[in-house]
Amino acid sequence: MIIFSTLRKINTIVIIIKHLKMKRFIVITLLLVFVTQGFAQKKELTVEDANYMNAALYPVRISNLNWMDKGDYYTYAKDNAIYVVSAKRGTEKLLIDLDVLNGDLHRNKIDSVKRIPAIKFSDKDNCKFKLKNNYYSYRLSTNQISLLNSVDEKAENKTFNDANNNIAYTKDNNLFVVVDGKEIPITKDENPGIVNGQSVHRNEFGISGGIFWSPNGDKIAFYRMDETMVEDYPIVDITTDIATVENNKYPMAGRTSHHVTLGIYNIETAQTVFMKTGEPLDQYLTTVTWGPEGKYMYISLLNRDQNHLSLNKYDAQTGDFIKTLFEEKDDKYVETETPLYFTPNNPTQFVWISERDGFMHMYLYNTDGKLIKQITGGDWLVTAFKGFYGKKSDNIYFMATKDGYLQNNLYSIDLKNSEITRITPDHGTHSTIISPDGKYIIDAFSNTESSRKYVLVNEKGKYLRTLEEPNNILDEYNLGETKLIDLTAEDGTPLKARIILPPDFDENKKYPVFLYVYGGPHAQLITDSWLSGAGLFLNYMATKGYIVFTVDNRGSANRGRDFEQAIFRNCGSVEVDDQMVGVDYLKSLPYVDAERIGVDGWSYGGFMTISLMLKHPGVFKVGCAGGPVIDWKYYEIMYGERYMDTPETNPEGYKNSSLLTKVDSLQGNLLIIHGTSDPTVVWQNSLQFIKACVDNNKLVDYFVYPGHGHNVRGKDRVHLYRKIARYFDDYL
Amino acid sequence: MIIFSTLRKINTIVIIIKHLKMKRFIVITLLLVFVTQGFAQKKELTVEDANYMNAALYPVRISNLNWMDKGDYYTYAKDNAIYVVSAKRGTEKLLIDLDVLNGDLHRNKIDSVKRIPAIKFSDKDNCKFKLKNNYYSYRLSTNQISLLNSVDEKAENKTFNDANNNIAYTKDNNLFVVVDGKEIPITKDENPGIVNGQSVHRNEFGISGGIFWSPNGDKIAFYRMDETMVEDYPIVDITTDIATVENNKYPMAGRTSHHVTLGIYNIETAQTVFMKTGEPLDQYLTTVTWGPEGKYMYISLLNRDQNHLSLNKYDAQTGDFIKTLFEEKDDKYVETETPLYFTPNNPTQFVWISERDGFMHMYLYNTDGKLIKQITGGDWLVTAFKGFYGKKSDNIYFMATKDGYLQNNLYSIDLKNSEITRITPDHGTHSTIISPDGKYIIDAFSNTESSRKYVLVNEKGKYLRTLEEPNNILDEYNLGETKLIDLTAEDGTPLKARIILPPDFDENKKYPVFLYVYGGPHAQLITDSWLSGAGLFLNYMATKGYIVFTVDNRGSANRGRDFEQAIFRNCGSVEVDDQMVGVDYLKSLPYVDAERIGVDGWSYGGFMTISLMLKHPGVFKVGCAGGPVIDWKYYEIMYGERYMDTPETNPEGYKNSSLLTKVDSLQGNLLIIHGTSDPTVVWQNSLQFIKACVDNNKLVDYFVYPGHGHNVRGKDRVHLYRKIARYFDDYL
Repeated sequence: MIIFSTLRKINTIVIIIKHLKMKRFIVITLLLVFVTQGFAQKKELTVEDANYMNAALYPVRISNLNWMDKGDYYTYAKDNAIYVVSAKRGTEKLLIDLDVLNGDLHRNKIDSVKRIPAIKFSDKDNCKFKLKNNYYSYRLSTNQISLLNSVDEKAENKTFNDANNNIAYTKDNNLFVVVDGKEIPITKDENPGIVNGQSVHRNEFGISGGIFWSPNGDKIAFYRMDETMVEDYPIVDITTDIATVENNKYPMAGRTSHHVTLGIYNIETAQTVFMKTGEPLDQYLTTVTWGPEGKYMYISLLNRDQNHLSLNKYDAQTGDFIKTLFEEKDDKYVETETPLYFTPNNPTQFVWISERDGFMHMYLYNTDGKLIKQITGGDWLVTAFKGFYGKKSDNIYFMATKDGYLQNNLYSIDLKNSEITRITPDHGTHSTIISPDGKYIIDAFSNTESSRKYVLVNEKGKYLRTLEEPNNILDEYNLGETKLIDLTAEDGTPLKARIILPPDFDENKKYPVFLYVYGGPHAQLITDSWLSGAGLFLNYMATKGYIVFTVDNRGSANRGRDFEQAIFRNCGSVEVDDQMVGVDYLKSLPYVDAERIGVDGWSYGGFMTISLMLKHPGVFKVGCAGGPVIDWKYYEIMYGERYMDTPETNPEGYKNSSLLTKVDSLQGNLLIIHGTSDPTVVWQNSLQFIKACVDNNKLVDYFVYPGHGHNVRGKDRVHLYRKIARYFDDYL
Repeated sequence: MIIFSTLRKINTIVIIIKHLKMKRFIVITLLLVFVTQGFAQKKELTVEDANYMNAALYPVRISNLNWMDKGDYYTYAKDNAIYVVSAKRGTEKLLIDLDVLNGDLHRNKIDSVKRIPAIKFSDKDNCKFKLKNNYYSYRLSTNQISLLNSVDEKAENKTFNDANNNIAYTKDNNLFVVVDGKEIPITKDENPGIVNGQSVHRNEFGISGGIFWSPNGDKIAFYRMDETMVEDYPIVDITTDIATVENNKYPMAGRTSHHVTLGIYNIETAQTVFMKTGEPLDQYLTTVTWGPEGKYMYISLLNRDQNHLSLNKYDAQTGDFIKTLFEEKDDKYVETETPLYFTPNNPTQFVWISERDGFMHMYLYNTDGKLIKQITGGDWLVTAFKGFYGKKSDNIYFMATKDGYLQNNLYSIDLKNSEITRITPDHGTHSTIISPDGKYIIDAFSNTESSRKYVLVNEKGKYLRTLEEPNNILDEYNLGETKLIDLTAEDGTPLKARIILPPDFDENKKYPVFLYVYGGPHAQLITDSWLSGAGLFLNYMATKGYIVFTVDNRGSANRGRDFEQAIFRNCGSVEVDDQMVGVDYLKSLPYVDAERIGVDGWSYGGFMTISLMLKHPGVFKVGCAGGPVIDWKYYEIMYGERYMDTPETNPEGYKNSSLLTKVDSLQGNLLIIHGTSDPTVVWQNSLQFIKACVDNNKLVDYFVYPGHGHNVRGKDRVHLYRKIARYFDDYL
């Protein structure tokens, strides 16, 4: 399957420029990517092209890419067939194609399929797959397909247990498991305000689901969220004959929060015990982890103020609290998003990831709560734990920003000597699939030069083979040049910025600016990845003649604790200052029309857009704010209180960040956009802002996407892009 | 009190122009109002000036203008004092001023007041007035002020009975009466879906209240509306800490309607009987009228289809049905909006107003249901019954369009010889207050030349005296010229149009057009009144350089039954055609820029605006539609079914008028505006349209006024005007 894409001449030129006029702006690197394609007329990017729904311009992905359980074999799918490849030898063999599968399906009286499904092979003969709600095992040599289990059509959050083939899942607000073909209800809550087996709190707590199978599959731990005491936010559906209201539990900052507990259901006894996590009931339960033998359950209890975490151990059989292993405290907030990673050879030791020294790093603990050692350290951060490898499991693989915060590489560290080896050889943003023994790594990555590339490397970071280097279809398009720029915040903090110049840029002309901002925590807009993280819409705007600019301000991700916590209790403060450093830089450029700077952002970026316009009136001729937080008092507890505390404990911060009281400063043209069913930043935010504008006789523009939630998804995103683009075209 | 306003030189020139190019457009009269004010620099109208809240530019009104019960005396208020004037002699005397009133209030231990209240004098010594919720009688000669009755602070719909000084009123959904200082609950409905004593159906049925005192004040008839079976429409209030829903009973076309009955409460027995109006329960109860002696109650029962009316007589004591006096039927709909007017000297005869011969005219009936005679007739219409006068009460005074449908004059007709006398001498739109014996009439009017004028005339239409001719403050402003134009619909129907030219109009230039449209029933935009009915915002738009144009299309008011009924079952059809006649006329004018025509309208006018843009794509470069009906299926039963029948009985009409299915034709720039709490045209309308535009990838603009109802009222109207004006400025 080694497919080399058509090679193109790619010249990467690194130019060092010192900007002499203004010391604060030092352009360190300027990466110019010239793609020479002869003199063929290049295509123009359209707004439809920019939509992520239009897969044509996005680099192809390889599907069904999996390692088998043993050996050096991996599978991949192509043209409705699945192939197996030996990593060592590079030899490739067809495992199964659609005709064979359909023949076997027919033979086993199962409806045929039109496309080959995802199939996970444990070895070259045995695999499992899912069709609709049925889970099958399949032995190729015998043509035998056996139904493992089926779930109800209404099942959601399906969690398959590979050890016993049972499936836990939710229907509405209750949790079920299907065992040997029989559906067993685990919870029977009639009140829809009690939700079982689903994600709780928010994904900012590292929580992505509510079902946790025990290591051997005999028990199911699950979140139980009681939100009956949480106030309702009404969301109106206007597509019914007569508009109807759906009440959505939405706990606003400072108000009553939900109560979460963790239950453990024992399949054999059909009994559920709840871990005795105690009070206060509105604490957060995070880092849920089964002990390696399934006897203990580890849960971090984080107080509602989010500045004091206790890692607790419970008896999974009785729910009894056993002990607190250790605590973590922080003046601002403790942010732990990962479970415990137990060492395979020693069930009393685990890796814990903490930001306590200023950066997310790994620590080795034992189950007595004793710190054995800090595994990694330094002014870079671990972004993901990837597993223990090596004969004694003493090599930890992890993703980290060690070679620059724009990158995300795979490393291994030898626990014995703390030696770190970089495994992914190319700079950029990597996604890795590691062979069972850790010797081979499929490395899918993109960087500023490559739209996507699949390579095979070994554990030492040695490049073995290119698996796929898809054509970058954008090479056929007339795009502008993207440059990364280093700026410095007022307090000396280094900031990264990105500029996209219009195609056929002429430095003697003056260009208007499309400043794209997000600015909130847990996001980094500028990365060493395809288009430097910019996406096609920003490039589209550049093709329309805008200089497209972005700064990752303090508060954003992958720069460490202090960089993010700079916004604590004062959202809309230093982030705005940092964006203005970017604006000042832009104004210093001879080819920027300083009278024609516009700003655009969504969600936190909507908040930032309006904050920028109101706190720096006259600077921005145009703003476009989507789904904006207008006053943090309308935002929910988990995220809102982490960064802002409560309106009661931080009245100044709420007052200073509220946009409702600053409407009088509005200058320029501001378009606000909101999804009418937004469950995250509730509609009240923008409607209250519009009301404040009307109250103050300030003209403002508004648009809504009926039925859309916090983002405008699907094909309607083209409409959104056109809307934004037209607003800038009309008013900037 | 004879105050002559500063006379100004007003030249009225009537020019007859024949437009030769296009026979369909015949400009018959062109009224040019030149106001010569020397060469002083005129002021420019601002958008704030255009707001009706800004009283400065509107002609002054005389307050407390009332006739005493006998003789030729009337009162008026000026500078916190009330004067009495002899109509015959013109002599004037101070009756009371603020100091005297406050002295007497103090003497009677009542809090003093800062402004003189409305006071109704029965003679020069005795009067009644109301302070807050207290009703007083007052004898000037004795300085005695007596409390007649008081009502609860929460009382609404207060209906004072002058015969016994008792007051009926509602609190929430129940009806109360205060008798000799004691509050008596008449109804005690706990279910808020049962509403007593309030207006029902709609004011399009001529219904403005739900409380009807019997002639001698011993009984109270009242509407009881059971809307428990009506579906709720949710209206969201976003000004609460967390948005809250108010469910509003809103019966949509074709769905379940409310049930209305009429109760009669007997104060002496404290018993209520309901008139046995029978089934179907969703019929309409209109023209509620007490028989002159209080024994009988007359109610028109109109079927839900609104094409069959029965005038029924009931026993007010028992509620028993006595007889149907007569019926009225119509192929399309029967529209009777006035009660029975019993002749004072003969309790068995009454005047009935009906559109049965094509125009609203008066008919004399007896209580057996026998038609005695048609009183008025002709292709003009009676707009209001004003009373019986003359010794034998054989002179009926009435308002009518007899001298032109743009006018509204007072006439009398002699029942003996059917001779009609016009009483209001000046052309225009009149409001009259008639002395008890009918000999004197205070005539407040405006017309195309006069902003407002108060004159005293006698029963023969003889001008006696000018009471007040306020300065027309607009004379100081640089306004454009207003012309009325006669057009002809495709089917030959004459149509009236109005054009406002920009100030300093130059016929060699090309001007953009601001086409202002309403177009629905019960409205007439062009009248012989101040500014020809145009209002200040339209004149403001003219001052900005737009040609402001309006056509009263078929379907609009004061042109008779067939003219209005032309839209029956097909809203958005002939009205649109008629507006296009106006557009074609505009395009024929050399000074109109046919590429720059915009259209603006609210409510039915919003529906018309979008209909025009979608049915004639490419004609309108800009549209602005406020509170628009988008699909008549979202409109309520009473009005919607009158003009459109039900979605089930008129599927074609609903389909053809729906704007949701025509989005694909949208061209040009369309701004839709809606009040988020609109209880009349529910928000769903515009949100559904926006959704349809997004679904069809059509750009459209939107704005909302949070908390506003069907109109943007109060100071926020300036914002609305600025919003509309800016949209036209930006895109036309």
